[in-house]
Amino acid sequence: MFEAVFQSFTETADPSQGAARTAALREALRQHGLDGFVVPRSDQHQNEYVPKGDERLAWLTGFTGSAGTAVVLAGEAAIFVDGRYTVQVREQVDMAVFTPESLIDTPPERWMETHLKAGQRIGYDPWLHTAGQVERLARGVAAAGAELIAVDDNPVDAIWPDRPAAPIGTVVLHRKRYAGQKADGKLSAVRKALKGCHGLVVSDPHAVAWLFNIRGSDVPHTPLPLGFAIVPREGRPTLYLDARKLSNQVRAKLEDVATVAEPDALASDIAAFGRNGATLRFDAATAPAKLVTALEAAGGKPDVGTDPIALLKAAKNATERDGSRAAHLRDAVAMVRFLHWFDKAAPAGKVTEISAVEALESFRRETLALKDVSFPTIAGFGRHAALPHYRVSTDSNLAVGKGIFLIDSGAQYEDGTTDITRTVVVGKPTAEMRDRFTRVLKGHIALARAVFPVGVSGAQLDTLARQFLWSAGLDFDHGTGHGIGSYLSVHEGPQRIAKSGTTPLVEGMILSNEPGYYKAGHWGIRLENLLIVEKREIKGAERPMLGFETVSLAPIDLALVDPKLMSPDEVAWLDGYHAVVRRAVSPLVEPIVRRWLAQATRRLGTADGEVATDGL
Amino acid sequence: MFEAVFQSFTETADPSQGAARTAALREALRQHGLDGFVVPRSDQHQNEYVPKGDERLAWLTGFTGSAGTAVVLAGEAAIFVDGRYTVQVREQVDMAVFTPESLIDTPPERWMETHLKAGQRIGYDPWLHTAGQVERLARGVAAAGAELIAVDDNPVDAIWPDRPAAPIGTVVLHRKRYAGQKADGKLSAVRKALKGCHGLVVSDPHAVAWLFNIRGSDVPHTPLPLGFAIVPREGRPTLYLDARKLSNQVRAKLEDVATVAEPDALASDIAAFGRNGATLRFDAATAPAKLVTALEAAGGKPDVGTDPIALLKAAKNATERDGSRAAHLRDAVAMVRFLHWFDKAAPAGKVTEISAVEALESFRRETLALKDVSFPTIAGFGRHAALPHYRVSTDSNLAVGKGIFLIDSGAQYEDGTTDITRTVVVGKPTAEMRDRFTRVLKGHIALARAVFPVGVSGAQLDTLARQFLWSAGLDFDHGTGHGIGSYLSVHEGPQRIAKSGTTPLVEGMILSNEPGYYKAGHWGIRLENLLIVEKREIKGAERPMLGFETVSLAPIDLALVDPKLMSPDEVAWLDGYHAVVRRAVSPLVEPIVRRWLAQATRRLGTADGEVATDGL
Repeated sequence: MFEAVFQSFTETADPSQGAARTAALREALRQHGLDGFVVPRSDQHQNEYVPKGDERLAWLTGFTGSAGTAVVLAGEAAIFVDGRYTVQVREQVDMAVFTPESLIDTPPERWMETHLKAGQRIGYDPWLHTAGQVERLARGVAAAGAELIAVDDNPVDAIWPDRPAAPIGTVVLHRKRYAGQKADGKLSAVRKALKGCHGLVVSDPHAVAWLFNIRGSDVPHTPLPLGFAIVPREGRPTLYLDARKLSNQVRAKLEDVATVAEPDALASDIAAFGRNGATLRFDAATAPAKLVTALEAAGGKPDVGTDPIALLKAAKNATERDGSRAAHLRDAVAMVRFLHWFDKAAPAGKVTEISAVEALESFRRETLALKDVSFPTIAGFGRHAALPHYRVSTDSNLAVGKGIFLIDSGAQYEDGTTDITRTVVVGKPTAEMRDRFTRVLKGHIALARAVFPVGVSGAQLDTLARQFLWSAGLDFDHGTGHGIGSYLSVHEGPQRIAKSGTTPLVEGMILSNEPGYYKAGHWGIRLENLLIVEKREIKGAERPMLGFETVSLAPIDLALVDPKLMSPDEVAWLDGYHAVVRRAVSPLVEPIVRRWLAQATRRLGTADGEVATDGL
Repeated sequence: MFEAVFQSFTETADPSQGAARTAALREALRQHGLDGFVVPRSDQHQNEYVPKGDERLAWLTGFTGSAGTAVVLAGEAAIFVDGRYTVQVREQVDMAVFTPESLIDTPPERWMETHLKAGQRIGYDPWLHTAGQVERLARGVAAAGAELIAVDDNPVDAIWPDRPAAPIGTVVLHRKRYAGQKADGKLSAVRKALKGCHGLVVSDPHAVAWLFNIRGSDVPHTPLPLGFAIVPREGRPTLYLDARKLSNQVRAKLEDVATVAEPDALASDIAAFGRNGATLRFDAATAPAKLVTALEAAGGKPDVGTDPIALLKAAKNATERDGSRAAHLRDAVAMVRFLHWFDKAAPAGKVTEISAVEALESFRRETLALKDVSFPTIAGFGRHAALPHYRVSTDSNLAVGKGIFLIDSGAQYEDGTTDITRTVVVGKPTAEMRDRFTRVLKGHIALARAVFPVGVSGAQLDTLARQFLWSAGLDFDHGTGHGIGSYLSVHEGPQRIAKSGTTPLVEGMILSNEPGYYKAGHWGIRLENLLIVEKREIKGAERPMLGFETVSLAPIDLALVDPKLMSPDEVAWLDGYHAVVRRAVSPLVEPIVRRWLAQATRRLGTADGEVATDGL
């Protein structure tokens, strides 16, 4: 009946290959005259989702997490993962071959300080690390008296017989009706932001996609065309894309504004800039060390800092905001149909975590506009809901019974990217569940209703979402919100609502609002809508002000709400939100769903501002 | 009747001397072979209040503000001040001699980039700048192809005939009944915090005072003994204090834990460490460049970073917290007597800004425990209340009429330092005044009531105090709270409640809670109490939690409160606070004040939680 096309539930990890492959790598290192090698989980762009041929860490060790690094020495090897993956790494990796280490407490550079011997030569692939990452590795290696060596031919690739080729996903134009601005206008804005350098190396494929109004299909879940670009301060930019990705029509359009070249010309083109003594800006977050070194070696001056595209891309224009609203309304139809289905099927014992994922993706596909899910859906029942990054597999799949079910999912539509989390209860919730859910909801509402002056950052708003948990001695251990792209990545910087989110918010930025609460081993709660930063006109205001428009549209489970814990303003917000959901989505769903939605979005407050508590 | 002993109301600035003194300085520079000289408003410790002989900037230019720098070249001169002083600098300084510049937008280093000529030699006094400040100056000077030269004999001193000698204020012991911990225990804690270096150079006299449990009287308003110390990782520390400040008894006590030496031995002692190849920690915020260079030149390794004393000093022990509570109760008696006096005298037209300052200081002196005011009282009527840093002089003194009066003041008692602001209205307030006051009050209450996990910083709490102003399109342009010392500086780091306050709060820190609102040219509001960070036990809490104890005790003017804008919780906080004030202070004041206090602290809420609005 339902089916998931964009997500699989099988774990591909295979600990059994680790010993043989590590032995082969050691032999290759010996031939290279190396005493060790660093294997990160990165591609050339520091992407979140990487092409199959860049899954070197998974191929070598078995570990399939989204972040990690291995260091293989002649006599020992270690794998470094963060707190999310301390359990998973032990299941996926042969512990006789790799010692697990904390990526945070003893990162590779610190580990190498004490595990290397003076005079040893440790290799790394300069395409897979940024200049800053190499600097950190080099410090650790140097502290042990050893040497860090850039290796152009990755020895993992040499011993990986059936390594998948680099993807050549078709590149399509991202039309002006979705992008809102032509590439030439974007190029002018970028050039204007490039003070004090002769050009910009665009190494983040999200930035390439935004700048040239193209999308691709090289990695799952994000429509990225993997590639680079150089935008000189004056003159024609060059776009480095594998020619096989381009139709004649797309190529012709791109050649209106840029020269199209093969990616293998990039390093030598940068060297040419260097020979002219040019200063080029590199994006510190994504530029491979290889390119920074290429400029420097040829006599140029690398300016490793911020890619100005990041901020331009983050502030969506009016067309992109309209697109996001349309995408969210479409997505809401799928979400509401899913929640209705779940509400009927789950109490009947007919739902598993996997079947829920399949159902939701199927409802999204029925919109006929779904390009991909924007990330693998997180669907957790009970104790699995307490794992913020849980990913269901056939091995872990739970049947949904009485208790809490959390589903965090998103879609890629051509007009916008979505990301939404709902937590629902099957059967009667406990008082503790309602208390915690209501505190999370109050934080969600405080952030959604926030009004703040221009210049305020997400770091300054994060506490609004936590205050009601704090007052009960509770908290959650993730940021409150991340940025979201426009038919691009579901995780986009620089804007964030978190302690680290010091970028001032500007009109048009899209952010998630997703406070949570997790009772480890038992259940978890998260409530996520997307927000668009908008200007606010306030009578008597003395400063330019901003606020948020909530664009996600789906009911919040009233069975988990305790209105006695809420202020009249908060109840009014919830009732107002539900009224918007009802009015927007009702006309777009079948009568049986419409009737369910009316009940799911019923008012809590009475006409005179009192809170109706009967029937809850 | 009333009198101010610790504060004067005459402006000593004299623009008329600027031309002659600058000419004399230029002649002295010529003799030194210099083309220019940098004159900061700093002493050797980067103090907020500096000895008279260090007021070089005021002597040379006439400018008496608390921050600023002049640069004198042969053909031109500039004075750099921040936004607080743009008006004042034009009144105090001869604009024919000095061009005013923004300390923020075009600081000296940037100004020199374009105003110096290649090959010029620019002097600075290495005792008056930190290493970081010198680095910034050097970059600007180098960008112009000029050279920055350390000058040991300050040429301003050479042309200042009657320059006051360095102060030799008597040093007294800060007894254990106030300090709570002996110097040897403090020394152990400091040594424990000194990882990876051979010793610490203590350049902040607040840190010297804390570490050795001494206080002095070298500068106004803060009981500082100006001096330095060196704490080696192993062995006896040396305390550098002018011998004339020490009685035999104090010297004997200090020699129990340290060697006492003359300050002029400091640089050569540091050089001796350098010759042994030692690494010494310097406080980046206060250590003079002179000392850093002395170590480096002798072969040592300066580690310019954080003085670990700052954090140890900031977390007050139980004795210091008790002292602060006692100081605040004593101070409350003076504040309540003052507010009662003002409430009677002001409507009768008998109060000026200066007489209010005199009255409050007199009430404080009547406690018989006042050592000094902790800063010059800010007392502003009407438009002066809109200037957060207003300081009344005989020229600016306004008679208090109908409208808003703001008074921000503090005291130095041996058991604690206080800082409190109240805003009161004479006559009937406007609706706008009540709206703004109530929003400020709601922010103050939100911060006072905050509960937060261990690890949270002041930056994360700042928004709580602003949210109700933001929702009306308003804000204030200063931090919400600063740290306060224990019979030390009224401005103490590293803790802050502000965007920049990233130091996690810990039990025992004292901070101000002082949101405000300023209607430029009309009136201003600020409401300030001091808070002590305390542990909070919460039933069911899953993390160690902190909260605040409010220790300042004085009524909040209910005539300015609009209870209709307040939640029941906020009204309950205000009523509870007023009940605490009433119960604590009533027994300590005369009957007429007691009766006034009862009315001033009357309940807004009725017994059943409703808000009584009659009579307001």
